[in-house]
Amino acid sequence: MAEPVFLAIDWGTTNRRIYAIDAHGTLVASERDDRGVTSVAPGDFPAEVAAIRARFGDLPVLIAGMAGSVRGWVELPYLACPANLTALANALHWVEPRTAIVPGLSFVEDGYGDVMRGEEVQLLGSVAAGLAPPDALICQPGTHCKWARMVGGSVAAFHTAMTGELFALLRRHSLLADFLTAEVVEGPAFHAGIAASADATLLTALFGARASVLLDLRPREDAASYVSGLLIGSDVSEQALVPGQPVHLLADPALGPLYAAAIGAYGGRPVAIDSQAGFIAGITALWRMIDAR
Amino acid sequence: MAEPVFLAIDWGTTNRRIYAIDAHGTLVASERDDRGVTSVAPGDFPAEVAAIRARFGDLPVLIAGMAGSVRGWVELPYLACPANLTALANALHWVEPRTAIVPGLSFVEDGYGDVMRGEEVQLLGSVAAGLAPPDALICQPGTHCKWARMVGGSVAAFHTAMTGELFALLRRHSLLADFLTAEVVEGPAFHAGIAASADATLLTALFGARASVLLDLRPREDAASYVSGLLIGSDVSEQALVPGQPVHLLADPALGPLYAAAIGAYGGRPVAIDSQAGFIAGITALWRMIDAR
Repeated sequence: MAEPVFLAIDWGTTNRRIYAIDAHGTLVASERDDRGVTSVAPGDFPAEVAAIRARFGDLPVLIAGMAGSVRGWVELPYLACPANLTALANALHWVEPRTAIVPGLSFVEDGYGDVMRGEEVQLLGSVAAGLAPPDALICQPGTHCKWARMVGGSVAAFHTAMTGELFALLRRHSLLADFLTAEVVEGPAFHAGIAASADATLLTALFGARASVLLDLRPREDAASYVSGLLIGSDVSEQALVPGQPVHLLADPALGPLYAAAIGAYGGRPVAIDSQAGFIAGITALWRMIDAR
Repeated sequence: MAEPVFLAIDWGTTNRRIYAIDAHGTLVASERDDRGVTSVAPGDFPAEVAAIRARFGDLPVLIAGMAGSVRGWVELPYLACPANLTALANALHWVEPRTAIVPGLSFVEDGYGDVMRGEEVQLLGSVAAGLAPPDALICQPGTHCKWARMVGGSVAAFHTAMTGELFALLRRHSLLADFLTAEVVEGPAFHAGIAASADATLLTALFGARASVLLDLRPREDAASYVSGLLIGSDVSEQALVPGQPVHLLADPALGPLYAAAIGAYGGRPVAIDSQAGFIAGITALWRMIDAR
């Protein structure tokens, strides 16, 4: 097995993924844990990285994600779109001689602002690895679903939808909470939710999801799938897809089929791509740029 | 001062209003407290009403609202729309010889269901008192905003939007919470939120409210008003108002001006009506019908 030449950390809010990568950009070892930035005390980041080096090798470390946020190691300014891998490499912030943090991206248009931290590596890496073409619409579902327009291999524009967070809020804290305990499945109730999203009456349809159960119009165990379809359908409808438009999907196995169904219902053509492969390709491209200097 | 002839209770989830009303339908005394149905143990409702009679007079009692829900005194079936005051009087449920609960209403159309408990008395009373015409669109803002179509003095149809609850969820539990601490005012930020609601991209605009503060595009203290404008604007836009359409508003002094502004922005003509007068007129009409029997 090849020796790793650098380590990459995708440091999220609640979770963290560590990758040891060889000179060919091949994954040698990886680990996932729950040491996200909110569980690391300010000032403890150097010790965390030293511990990672002790386990995976005394190598250069590239960090993407929330380590560059106000809750992280050091708050980095966002790099403005359009941005490509070269711009990202030039904006790396060295917190130690052999440890750098990748900045997030910002997008501003007509007074509307948006931000991301971490997703940019997956996006640019997916194009670099040929998983998505240089001009593409890429969707990254999650707590905050990102929709990025790639132009000539750069992130030209992006929008974030609060879809996943809103579903979690409704499930945990709302009047609907008792109705949303079932697992979400891509079945008839989910598709009924997508269909309802086309009416653009989200605030009304959410209340109706509960009322329809009270009135025996819909089984209680269908409500979670219906509401998920309503939210994911609304999210996709906000993107105003052109018929037949390919949408490259960087999604986990749970959300991928749900977004693919909604994208299809709105006339788009979902194309699944492997998000870990995208991240590794992107972070390796960044490492090669700095290693060559 | 005239003597009261009956007592009315508007028994909500968290609050309760008690009214002593004379033979002319004039308010003699009233009281508001926080003994909503969720703070009354099952089985304690008779004692609560006995205590109210001890304070206000040994009179017939008519109860509207959540006392007829699964968390209340007894769960009553919903009365189906269209429904007028006569239908409501015929469907009163007597829990004691001189104590009746008004049932709530349900509305079903094309597989969509909706329910209300308590608002029906204000709606029908507003028309009975001449505060709104027999054919009208009436809006009752709140945690769950009701939009009722009155036809010939009956509640013909209604829809409920989760507007107020969603704002409270975002303010208390979401990633936006830290950004929404300021008071909502009907100023430029609120109107910017209404304008953004016209793009029908609510899920995206919600995330943008936070990102725009992070990117210094909008002052942090404006975010609450902007998000309120976005939600109330979305709520009004879902009603598809016809230009110049009067909308009768049964609102408290906090929400009234906000909804009036959004209704105006969407081409409607807001007409404020007094919600307490509507309730008293409705409950008095019901009392007269049963008293005449």
